Amino acid sequence: MGILKKEENGLENLEKITHVENVKLSEDGKNVIIIDQTKLPNREEYLTLHTAGDLYEAIFELKVRGAPAIGICAGYGIYVLARQIETEDYDRFLEEFRKYKEYLDSSRPTAVNLSWALNRMENVVTSHSDLPVSKILKLLEQESRMIQEEDIRMCRAISEFGLSLIHDGDGVLTHCNAGPLATSQYGTALGPLFLGKERGMNFKVFADETRPLLQGARLTSHELAKSGIDVTLICDNMASLVMKNGWIQACFVGCDRVAANGDTANKIGTSGVAILAKHYGIPLYVLGPSSTIDLNCASGEDITIELRDADEIKTKFYEEPMALPEVKCYNPAFDVTDHTLITAIVTEEGICYPPFTDSLAEVFRKKRS
Amino acid sequence: MGILKKEENGLENLEKITHVENVKLSEDGKNVIIIDQTKLPNREEYLTLHTAGDLYEAIFELKVRGAPAIGICAGYGIYVLARQIETEDYDRFLEEFRKYKEYLDSSRPTAVNLSWALNRMENVVTSHSDLPVSKILKLLEQESRMIQEEDIRMCRAISEFGLSLIHDGDGVLTHCNAGPLATSQYGTALGPLFLGKERGMNFKVFADETRPLLQGARLTSHELAKSGIDVTLICDNMASLVMKNGWIQACFVGCDRVAANGDTANKIGTSGVAILAKHYGIPLYVLGPSSTIDLNCASGEDITIELRDADEIKTKFYEEPMALPEVKCYNPAFDVTDHTLITAIVTEEGICYPPFTDSLAEVFRKKRS
Repeated sequence: MGILKKEENGLENLEKITHVENVKLSEDGKNVIIIDQTKLPNREEYLTLHTAGDLYEAIFELKVRGAPAIGICAGYGIYVLARQIETEDYDRFLEEFRKYKEYLDSSRPTAVNLSWALNRMENVVTSHSDLPVSKILKLLEQESRMIQEEDIRMCRAISEFGLSLIHDGDGVLTHCNAGPLATSQYGTALGPLFLGKERGMNFKVFADETRPLLQGARLTSHELAKSGIDVTLICDNMASLVMKNGWIQACFVGCDRVAANGDTANKIGTSGVAILAKHYGIPLYVLGPSSTIDLNCASGEDITIELRDADEIKTKFYEEPMALPEVKCYNPAFDVTDHTLITAIVTEEGICYPPFTDSLAEVFRKKRS
Repeated sequence: MGILKKEENGLENLEKITHVENVKLSEDGKNVIIIDQTKLPNREEYLTLHTAGDLYEAIFELKVRGAPAIGICAGYGIYVLARQIETEDYDRFLEEFRKYKEYLDSSRPTAVNLSWALNRMENVVTSHSDLPVSKILKLLEQESRMIQEEDIRMCRAISEFGLSLIHDGDGVLTHCNAGPLATSQYGTALGPLFLGKERGMNFKVFADETRPLLQGARLTSHELAKSGIDVTLICDNMASLVMKNGWIQACFVGCDRVAANGDTANKIGTSGVAILAKHYGIPLYVLGPSSTIDLNCASGEDITIELRDADEIKTKFYEEPMALPEVKCYNPAFDVTDHTLITAIVTEEGICYPPFTDSLAEVFRKKRS
């Protein structure tokens, strides 16, 4: 497991990167500006969020999506709202702050990064009760910017490690979307492709469209094409033929939760990609922040799979229903890829190889030390 | 390899079957009546086809689809048109007949059954030049009905053989559509499910939606649900999880062409299903008429895969484009499943097990004898 030196993780070269800016604080600090992901790929519409209602709606309606992006939006959002609290009294300020926090936190109850970012911002307030409100606001702005900067550094490190696993000219298969829109700048699973492109490398990317919600078609192919990366969109069931044709040298996928033994929950269909990759002798790499590793989860059997609405399969996106109302649908949002099918798990701390029970635990030992 | 006795292949029990009638001759013999497959599953609309233009359009626009169903429609169609030729003179009759035949034959140049059925009907005319036109018309009606009856018998035999491979209560995964709509009455890959249902057996069917054209959602789930068979629609990328859950005891797929070594071309995604099935230790059965076995094709490498338009992936069925215009798409219509991934190939002549080079050749020896 390799660890990048700190100076290589820095922000020195960020000005080179010219991605879509998915979430940012306006220059006057009064608004959060996001790209409306529900309008992609057909329209690049930016939204200016100012009120608590604006922010709630943007998160609730998936206008901003991707766990890290939601966390960043919530950090900036609660800062923007805190500025609107008209008091110099600390106790009243804290009370109002918490109302806003609870309201935003209820917009997507299962998004871990949402609560995480809001708690982090609240800690700034509660640990500085001795300071005037105007100073606390300054610290809140700093903290919200730090959340985004840390995410950029983390994505950058993952991208560096991931890039070391592929070669110029390689064909790479992707599933779902773990790119800049979902995170900040590079993204995780797509990060190595952007980083390689900046360094003059050319990959041939095949993007699974990723039914039912088509994040691969709507977001991944959009992000890659906009950056001039050679991308070909395929339906999920075409991955087998693309691999058989010899066009794929590596599969890059993200992760929602990684168990202690390496079993990885990710977008539905990931386990199928992994089985095909193993059949054809192609490595499958999981890329994600070390925060998705859950050592309390011994294996994939401890991970519950979210079941979603049948309408996503039957009616969403279509002009008219594609199956009869009486037809049942099974619509799991995720599946678990067995650790035996995974070549390596790439985090910002380094590349973990089997046996994962050891290499994943090592990530945490290094973080503690 | 088992062979059904002739009397078991007969039509004795056909009155029991209550499927959608996809193609039939009207009672007065003046029209072909079809169900418009492009309107399914939302509307069951029947079309009455009388003119050459009607028939051409129905085939060209996929209102009738599935190779056997197209052949049956063409047989009835050319009979209906032959009745409209106003002459008692044999030579003029043959000339007009051939004009109609060529016109219909041009509606879908690559559909083998279309030419096959039309040639068979033309043979009736040319081998009875000594008979009056009115007698020839009688023979044409008989021949057209025979084409459908033979298809019914063939599907029935395949269904019997297929049913012998599964047990009451089994979970069965299907890909694409090879049911009654595409053939006549039972269908091929779906036939055992309908036949078992008639006999009081209950299966739990999981139907892959089958991107890009969604035949699994639009047709398979429709046909099965209408017949009271327990069917659950899934996106193609959910097959891995459904298998992992232990819900599938067999996979039933159709075939477009089977090479001498058993390599099988079928709807894109079939090879992926086969790899998943092998991984999870689930048998994969290919079901189709012996006419799809091509002994001139040594292996799958001799089979050319049709590439179709990007719009099927990017824009068809959707309210608005799902990917940017500049995003490339790879849209193969079929893939080849390696014979090592196939448990058995089921034809109307019996069940072929590996080594397929022997068992498939045996089908033809039996047919000749």
